[in-house]
Amino acid sequence: MSDKSGAKKIVTAAVVVIGDEILSGRTQDKNMAWIAVRLNEIGVQLREVRVVPDIEAEIVAAVNALRAKFDYVFTTGGIGPTHDDITADSIAAAFDVGIDFHPEAMALLTRHYETSGIEFNDARKRMARIPDGASLINNPVSKAPGFCIENVYVMAGVPTIMQAMFEEIAPTLHGGPKMLSRTIGAGLPEGRVAEKLGALQKAYPDVSMGSYPYFRQGEVGTNLVLRSTEKADLDAAFGELVEYLKGEGVHVVETT
Amino acid sequence: MSDKSGAKKIVTAAVVVIGDEILSGRTQDKNMAWIAVRLNEIGVQLREVRVVPDIEAEIVAAVNALRAKFDYVFTTGGIGPTHDDITADSIAAAFDVGIDFHPEAMALLTRHYETSGIEFNDARKRMARIPDGASLINNPVSKAPGFCIENVYVMAGVPTIMQAMFEEIAPTLHGGPKMLSRTIGAGLPEGRVAEKLGALQKAYPDVSMGSYPYFRQGEVGTNLVLRSTEKADLDAAFGELVEYLKGEGVHVVETT
Repeated sequence: MSDKSGAKKIVTAAVVVIGDEILSGRTQDKNMAWIAVRLNEIGVQLREVRVVPDIEAEIVAAVNALRAKFDYVFTTGGIGPTHDDITADSIAAAFDVGIDFHPEAMALLTRHYETSGIEFNDARKRMARIPDGASLINNPVSKAPGFCIENVYVMAGVPTIMQAMFEEIAPTLHGGPKMLSRTIGAGLPEGRVAEKLGALQKAYPDVSMGSYPYFRQGEVGTNLVLRSTEKADLDAAFGELVEYLKGEGVHVVETT
Repeated sequence: MSDKSGAKKIVTAAVVVIGDEILSGRTQDKNMAWIAVRLNEIGVQLREVRVVPDIEAEIVAAVNALRAKFDYVFTTGGIGPTHDDITADSIAAAFDVGIDFHPEAMALLTRHYETSGIEFNDARKRMARIPDGASLINNPVSKAPGFCIENVYVMAGVPTIMQAMFEEIAPTLHGGPKMLSRTIGAGLPEGRVAEKLGALQKAYPDVSMGSYPYFRQGEVGTNLVLRSTEKADLDAAFGELVEYLKGEGVHVVETT
């Protein structure tokens, strides 16, 4: 995306993870990190995630807050055949539009269940209910489609299905400048590099610098992550940091 | 916690995960699920999680929205010595209070760094800056304390340290009725049990029923999770569901 001056605009996104199973701790969410990495690859920066329960008012509030604030919103979960799958109704409520059986979704599910000899019962027909004005997202894994309405993309919660749906929509997303990153693994506690890092951050405002301590088998170290959309600045800041650490006699490794 | 009638009140919580490293996908969050499980063990239900970047306004907005809505708020991340550790300042801003070096925190960090022969430099002193009116949360792992102000508990992001801090505060948290759960692993696609489950949900409004399909080595199955604070209702609904599935000739296993 470009603004009128031709400068590339930063493109942002949020994720809404819908599901009691994540909030109960029963299921460890694996979608958030996967979506973050894939979005970054196409020049979209994930800026916020909300995990909400299977309660319509909560889903509506999260989706409406985030779709107004970010370029894209992706939801995961709650589009299956059971009574607790209320995402489609919640999205219709968020956009204040109707919801009905979508002819294309009905057709593809009818075909799927006929072919597989499985009864296309009322519960399964629920998966063809799509908010008015939405377009379908193909589901190459288990057929029941996701959908997209304005800047909101509604996907399944099962990781393999969510990933397949994401790949269907990825070519249609418009990214901005890609966030580049370089990481240094440094054999020192972060308190020893903090002041230098703070000074470097001031010198390179376009480079976001993060410090993440680790403790492995009694060894203390810090991963220093530099991120920027500007490659020259990133490389310069990175070079300066490495030089400083080497001057201090610290063992450094560039990692990914 | 009990209300005036003596009925036990449901106690709720939210988590704010603070950190660019989670939103970039570089680090997979492990704290959310751990906190969810531990909270449930003490009768507190996790109802929302927000993941926000290292930006003060975003942290303030999330903390203020959630502390007004839930009984407890737990934050993870951003309390180390580096410039990107801005959680303490953000919490002070959220509560509109001052922030300064906390005498007790200064004393314990001074002692710690003296003992370990490490320089207690300005960056490390940042970890003793605590919002006015907050009380410290002991950090048995790496000493730099967390803190608690009103219903907000500020903890480290490194899982081992966060867990140790949580165990320090756990005895002080007041839980309500504990959410009990029973899970059935059923060898059928969820579309086949959806109608029965929906009917059962209507018959047992106090039991929350979730359906989670899985696909393992070509085998399709569904975990059916029943949750309630009322043991009698939970067991009755569970028994009815198992009986139904057995009547349908479905292989069922009670799992955890």
